[in-house]
Amino acid sequence: MTDLTLALDAMSGDFGPCITVPAALQALASMPSLHLLIVGQPKTMAPYLATANYSLKRRLCVVPADLIISNDIKPSRAIRVSKGTSMRIALDLVSNGHAQAVVSAGNTGALMGLAKIIIKPLEGIERPALMTLLPNQKKGQTVVLDLGANVNSSSTMLVQFAVMGSVIAEEFVGIKTPRVALLNIGEEEYKGLNNIREAAIMLKNAPDINYVGYLEGNDVLTGKTDVLVCDGFIGNVTLKTIEGVVRMFFSLLKSPEDKRNLSLWSRLLQIFTEVTIIKRLESFNPDQYNGACLIGLSGTVVKSHGSANQQAFKVAIEQAVQRHISQRIALRLKAIYSRVIDKSTCI
Amino acid sequence: MTDLTLALDAMSGDFGPCITVPAALQALASMPSLHLLIVGQPKTMAPYLATANYSLKRRLCVVPADLIISNDIKPSRAIRVSKGTSMRIALDLVSNGHAQAVVSAGNTGALMGLAKIIIKPLEGIERPALMTLLPNQKKGQTVVLDLGANVNSSSTMLVQFAVMGSVIAEEFVGIKTPRVALLNIGEEEYKGLNNIREAAIMLKNAPDINYVGYLEGNDVLTGKTDVLVCDGFIGNVTLKTIEGVVRMFFSLLKSPEDKRNLSLWSRLLQIFTEVTIIKRLESFNPDQYNGACLIGLSGTVVKSHGSANQQAFKVAIEQAVQRHISQRIALRLKAIYSRVIDKSTCI
Repeated sequence: MTDLTLALDAMSGDFGPCITVPAALQALASMPSLHLLIVGQPKTMAPYLATANYSLKRRLCVVPADLIISNDIKPSRAIRVSKGTSMRIALDLVSNGHAQAVVSAGNTGALMGLAKIIIKPLEGIERPALMTLLPNQKKGQTVVLDLGANVNSSSTMLVQFAVMGSVIAEEFVGIKTPRVALLNIGEEEYKGLNNIREAAIMLKNAPDINYVGYLEGNDVLTGKTDVLVCDGFIGNVTLKTIEGVVRMFFSLLKSPEDKRNLSLWSRLLQIFTEVTIIKRLESFNPDQYNGACLIGLSGTVVKSHGSANQQAFKVAIEQAVQRHISQRIALRLKAIYSRVIDKSTCI
Repeated sequence: MTDLTLALDAMSGDFGPCITVPAALQALASMPSLHLLIVGQPKTMAPYLATANYSLKRRLCVVPADLIISNDIKPSRAIRVSKGTSMRIALDLVSNGHAQAVVSAGNTGALMGLAKIIIKPLEGIERPALMTLLPNQKKGQTVVLDLGANVNSSSTMLVQFAVMGSVIAEEFVGIKTPRVALLNIGEEEYKGLNNIREAAIMLKNAPDINYVGYLEGNDVLTGKTDVLVCDGFIGNVTLKTIEGVVRMFFSLLKSPEDKRNLSLWSRLLQIFTEVTIIKRLESFNPDQYNGACLIGLSGTVVKSHGSANQQAFKVAIEQAVQRHISQRIALRLKAIYSRVIDKSTCI
C-alpha cells in the first residue's frame, strides 16, 4: 500500500483526545504506511502521546489548534466561527495537499458544511452524500447513502446518490453492475413520496445503473441490493435505528440472568455459547463499521460517531484509509454521472 | 370482559384464509367473550372451518364477500372498486354497528382510505394515524405513531399524533403524564425538517402534553420516551427496519453452525442456552406485536402485516380486542386535543 497521510480532528467526539489519540496510535501500529497529522490542543493531547513508542511517533505530527467546534452549535454559525478550530485546520490540511483525508467525530452539520466549502465537490457532482458500507445477511456489504448530509433530497439528488453509490460498490466492494434500490414504504410503483417516485423513473432510464426498484426497511440488511439510496433524513434515522437495535441485542445477550442456578460447568458452557453467538453476530456490531464517508468531494472526509469508543474511532481511521477516493474513481464517477444525468433529464 | 364483536377481513394478507381462519379460531378459543364476523368467500374458507368445534363455531358467523382488494392496486382505485370486497364489507359492519372493530392484513393504503370514508373520524381529529405499542428495553411499551397512514405530515398533524399517542399511553399502557418525543436526526433544537421543528414549538407550549424533546433512531427501543411521534413515511421505514434487524438476529441465533464438533451433552446445553436467549429476546419478536391500530376514528381498525403467520395474525386480533377505543377514550381525546390545538395555534 502506498503511503497515505490523514488529518485527524483529535478534539472531536464526546470524549476528545482520550479516545482519539489512543485510537490513532492503534491505527498507526496496525498500518505501517499510515501517517497522521493529529490536530488539536497539544497540552490536552500530550498525556495520551507520552507513552507511545518512537516507531509510531515518527509517523505522526501534532498540528496545534486551540479551538473546538462544539456539538450543539448550529452548523451555519459553526462555519462562520470556524477559524482556528481543529476541524477547520484538519480540512485545510486536505485542501492544501498536506493530507489526503480527514477523520472527525465532530458536529456533523459543521463538518459537512465546512467540507463542501473547503474541499471542493468533484466536477459534475452537485451535492456530496454521507455513505457507509453496512454488513448484510449474505455476508456481503451494502452501500447505503445519504445518511444525513442532505435532509431534503430532490429526485435529481437521489439519482446522484445512486450513481455515486454504484461506483463505490464497484470499486470498494468489487461488485460488477451493482444492484441499486430506493428505500421506500412499499414495493409498488405508486408508493412513497414524490421525489422517490420521480427518481425511480429517472433511474429506470439511466444507462450504467442497474436499478432494481424499491426496497422496504425490513430488507436493509438482507442483501437484496448492493446500493440503497434514500434522503439524508430517512437514512440517518434508519442507520441509527439499526445500531440501536443491534446494541440492545448485544446488551441483552450479555445479560447475566439465568445463570444463577447452574453448576460451574454448565455456567461455563453457557458463557461459551453466548460468546459463540456474539461472534456469529459480530459483523453487525456498529463499532465494526463506524465511520460514514462524505463522498462526492475531491478529498475524503470520514465522519465517526460522536460517541465512538477507541475501537470504533480506530475503525473510522481505517475506513478513511480504505475508502480514500482515488482520482481514478473520481474520473469514473464523473463520466458515468454525466451520462446518467444527460439521459434521465431528457425523459 | 364485556362481549366484543370483530369483523375479520379473512381474504386479506399474503396467504388469505389458510392463515386468517385458523388464527380466528385460535383467538376465539383463548377469548371467551369474543365474537367474530368472518368476511370472505365461503367456499375458500370452508375447509379451514370444517374441523372447528361447536363451542367456537357458535361465536362466529361467516359473512359472504366474493371480491378481494389486491395488494398491488393503487388505493384511490381500490376505493372506487371496493363494493363487494371483503375489506369494504368488514368496514361496513363496523359503520352500521354490527361490529366494534375490524382486523385486516390487506392493502394498507386502501384500508386507510376506506376506513376514513366509512368509519368517520372522531370529532376534532382531522387525520387518523397508524399506531403500535413497541416493546422497549425497560420492559415497558412505547406508543409509536404514525406508521404509514400519512406519508406527508404537517406540523399540526404531528401535534395531533402526539395528543392521540399521549391518550393511548395513559389508557392502554397505564402511564400517568406520558413523556412525548419527536423522532429526529439529532437532539439539538435546530436539527431536522421544518415540520418537526414547528411541531416541537407547538408541543412545548401545549397543555396536557409532557413533551421531552427530540429522540434519535438509536433510542426507539430504549424506553426514553412513552410516545414517539413521526410522520408516516419515517415511521413505516423505522418500524420495518426494526423488524428486519430483529428477524435477522433470530435467524442467526437459530443457525445450526458451531455444534458439529460438540458432545451430545454439550450440544444439548448449547441448544438450551440458545432457547434461553431467544426467550429473553422474545418480547422483541415482531410476531408478538403484529398489528398497527388506526386511531382517531370512531371505530377500531387493526392492520396486520400482509406477511403475518397464524400466530402473528392472532396477535393482531388480540390487539383489536385490547385496543378497542371506548367512547370514554374518544371523549378524553377530543377534550385534550381541542385544548392543545387552541393553545398551540395561538403561539
